[in-house]
Amino acid sequence: MYKKEAFSPFMAVNPKSYFWGKTILELALQCDKIAEETGVTIYFTCPFTDIRMVKEATKIIQVTAQGMEALRPGRGIGHILPESLKEAGADAVFLNHAENPMTISELYRTMRRAKELDIFTIVCADSVAEAKAIAMLEPDIVLAEPTDLIGTGETADDSYIKDTVREIRAVDPDVGIMIASGITTAEDCYRVVALGADGTGSTSGVVKADNPAQRVREMCEAVKKAHQTKEQ
Amino acid sequence: MYKKEAFSPFMAVNPKSYFWGKTILELALQCDKIAEETGVTIYFTCPFTDIRMVKEATKIIQVTAQGMEALRPGRGIGHILPESLKEAGADAVFLNHAENPMTISELYRTMRRAKELDIFTIVCADSVAEAKAIAMLEPDIVLAEPTDLIGTGETADDSYIKDTVREIRAVDPDVGIMIASGITTAEDCYRVVALGADGTGSTSGVVKADNPAQRVREMCEAVKKAHQTKEQ
Amino acid sequence: MYKKEAFSPFMAVNPKSYFWGKTILELALQCDKIAEETGVTIYFTCPFTDIRMVKEATKIIQVTAQGMEALRPGRGIGHILPESLKEAGADAVFLNHAENPMTISELYRTMRRAKELDIFTIVCADSVAEAKAIAMLEPDIVLAEPTDLIGTGETADDSYIKDTVREIRAVDPDVGIMIASGITTAEDCYRVVALGADGTGSTSGVVKADNPAQRVREMCEAVKKAHQTKEQ
Amino acid sequence: MYKKEAFSPFMAVNPKSYFWGKTILELALQCDKIAEETGVTIYFTCPFTDIRMVKEATKIIQVTAQGMEALRPGRGIGHILPESLKEAGADAVFLNHAENPMTISELYRTMRRAKELDIFTIVCADSVAEAKAIAMLEPDIVLAEPTDLIGTGETADDSYIKDTVREIRAVDPDVGIMIASGITTAEDCYRVVALGADGTGSTSGVVKADNPAQRVREMCEAVKKAHQTKEQ
Repeated sequence: MYKKEAFSPFMAVNPKSYFWGKTILELALQCDKIAEETGVTIYFTCPFTDIRMVKEATKIIQVTAQGMEALRPGRGIGHILPESLKEAGADAVFLNHAENPMTISELYRTMRRAKELDIFTIVCADSVAEAKAIAMLEPDIVLAEPTDLIGTGETADDSYIKDTVREIRAVDPDVGIMIASGITTAEDCYRVVALGADGTGSTSGVVKADNPAQRVREMCEAVKKAHQTKEQ
Repeated sequence: MYKKEAFSPFMAVNPKSYFWGKTILELALQCDKIAEETGVTIYFTCPFTDIRMVKEATKIIQVTAQGMEALRPGRGIGHILPESLKEAGADAVFLNHAENPMTISELYRTMRRAKELDIFTIVCADSVAEAKAIAMLEPDIVLAEPTDLIGTGETADDSYIKDTVREIRAVDPDVGIMIASGITTAEDCYRVVALGADGTGSTSGVVKADNPAQRVREMCEAVKKAHQTKEQ
Repeated sequence: MYKKEAFSPFMAVNPKSYFWGKTILELALQCDKIAEETGVTIYFTCPFTDIRMVKEATKIIQVTAQGMEALRPGRGIGHILPESLKEAGADAVFLNHAENPMTISELYRTMRRAKELDIFTIVCADSVAEAKAIAMLEPDIVLAEPTDLIGTGETADDSYIKDTVREIRAVDPDVGIMIASGITTAEDCYRVVALGADGTGSTSGVVKADNPAQRVREMCEAVKKAHQTKEQ
Repeated sequence: MYKKEAFSPFMAVNPKSYFWGKTILELALQCDKIAEETGVTIYFTCPFTDIRMVKEATKIIQVTAQGMEALRPGRGIGHILPESLKEAGADAVFLNHAENPMTISELYRTMRRAKELDIFTIVCADSVAEAKAIAMLEPDIVLAEPTDLIGTGETADDSYIKDTVREIRAVDPDVGIMIASGITTAEDCYRVVALGADGTGSTSGVVKADNPAQRVREMCEAVKKAHQTKEQ
């Protein structure tokens, strides 16, 4: 069984709106095997319409909703009711992604709703400063994407990743730390976990691979190997 | 089989975020019988997570999504991809509800996406002027809620409803016209259809009834009776 | 004095956020002369902070706010109160620009607020269908930008412009019609007015010119000449 | 002259959209005297259209914009360009008010723009947790409104205010702390400053007073007295 205390190391497989229906189900089934065989926790996102189907067909992966809102049962057409996600089988949710940003107030209300319903939260930040701010709100995992660097000509070098991890740990030693900007290969995954992240994730690295499941397997094995190195 | 040419008379059963999961499935099954027995087209809305389950369990009702966006397959986490709704079984979609309003540009793009995928559109308007504007965009059904009157002390009397229908027909003689503000009883349903609407709908009248399915049945029978009166 | 009945031909000079403060004041003063000398109505937009200063320094140009909201005096921090624009001297307002889109409901409420306060409305549409929808809401001027064509490989050729004008006129013969997509030269201005528009407008054609005021003068003269051709 | 190091004690006079034009100018002139006579820093908000007029007519008050956005000079119609506020004379800006909430990413970008232009930031938080998160982003003042308590039946008692101040200080000892929820009398102002806040603020307490300027004077005197008590 899944335990929040033991989510590390992890890999977020996030096909966004590239895959849905049968395609996402097929990848989910393969990820379920990979999670079982590697022991890496996989947060697997899918469209809202596919959550129930994916959950019913799998045993190991953490079925992850692409978003959620804070509303309670009652009025509210077109919004994402937390209870509807939970009942359909969602284990976790991505919040505040750059493609779906939230106000601070709505984010915090939604995070409290997730806690009520025991839905695991992965909350995205666009910069290290924002990651530290979000860490104050007590997410389960904070996803730091160093877009601070965008347009600066710098790359997310090793020292940058180490600093990011250290700064977030200083705010909350227990929060899960995911670093995921521009991860496309197994080597990228190895590097960020070796440098201190608890996990990583990928969209384009997976959906644009010739064999997406094979790519996920390589990435999970890299994450596991990097994690083991740290434990020694 | 469902034909757009023959959607009249219709009844929108719109439990919003009051029902989900098992509760919505149960009501859907009962509505399926009611639609079959009365011949009234039922647009049955449910949370995104329940579309596939409701569609697989029913034969007659028009499974209706609570919203949709214009994005295409690719990036876009947390957004409502049209293809994901279609594949899960959505027949129709509510757009621009006052609880989930859209910019004109996003609404029109989304309506074109719905046409591409043969998803039936029910587009909401907050006033008669807005209903006429929306009719120019060629929805399948325009839902006119006379919130023009809110706060004026006037009620939506018979002449108001007749005028609303006449003004929308003048813009587009073929669009489906739904009038639904404050519909809580079968008598309310009878009245708006007798006065010219092609159909009506209800949220609170259904979800707050002691027996929601019984209330839907009474409403559908009233809609059918009013429609037959007009045909004679 | 300005009369709505006599706004044609017109030119919208829309420096967006390229100019503010002293720079916008200087251009406004020059436009005031150009408007007087050519007889072309100039809708001159400026940042909210500059409306009062520009209005106090000019006599002829129509000082135009970049946006407005529907709120009434009372609560509402950070929002654009119609009364605050009117008192500062705004004659007109741009609404629903693609860079600042509005929901249909908020747009219509704001247009009614503009009427209450006698503020002239220039309402933007992203496509011909949207322009026709907006015309149903009775703006003073509808701005049609044929973004329908974007990405199709087609250009906005003469027949397209003529069709756009004809379709909008069919909805409302009295609405002012502005066509402004990609207008960078005086020749562009001449063409759209000669083909039927009541006026046109420009941002980049003006702000990126070596001499913005000289460019406005050429454009206004072209608009006037095209308009005179139509009157004969 | 104004120094950030010496902003304490302060009072935010925030008439929102209740006052504009001549009415706001009159109150601003009176506040300028009050600020001079009491030595309390007054952050005086006004509509965007009135910033230049209020700044030109006053010497002591901190002229405060009701909001701002992160855009840079260029495109962007209807948005609040930082440079346009600065040039008009804004000293400070309110950000993320509950009536005008921002995404975390947009808030942080806007705060960095404010720093570039030396505009003082007053950033609002809906709860203590959010206030702590915002403190990580290094605002000049964080405004904590204990809406945590709304609907709980509890009031913001003394221990609550002390705890709020202590928790924010633990994150950033140097940030200005404003507590302002439901402040309507001079006694309310005295209390929150005596309990640890650096300042407070009021909307309805001022705009609904028979004599708004007299109310501001009483409030500033109370703030000053509470501050002096703490210094002893």
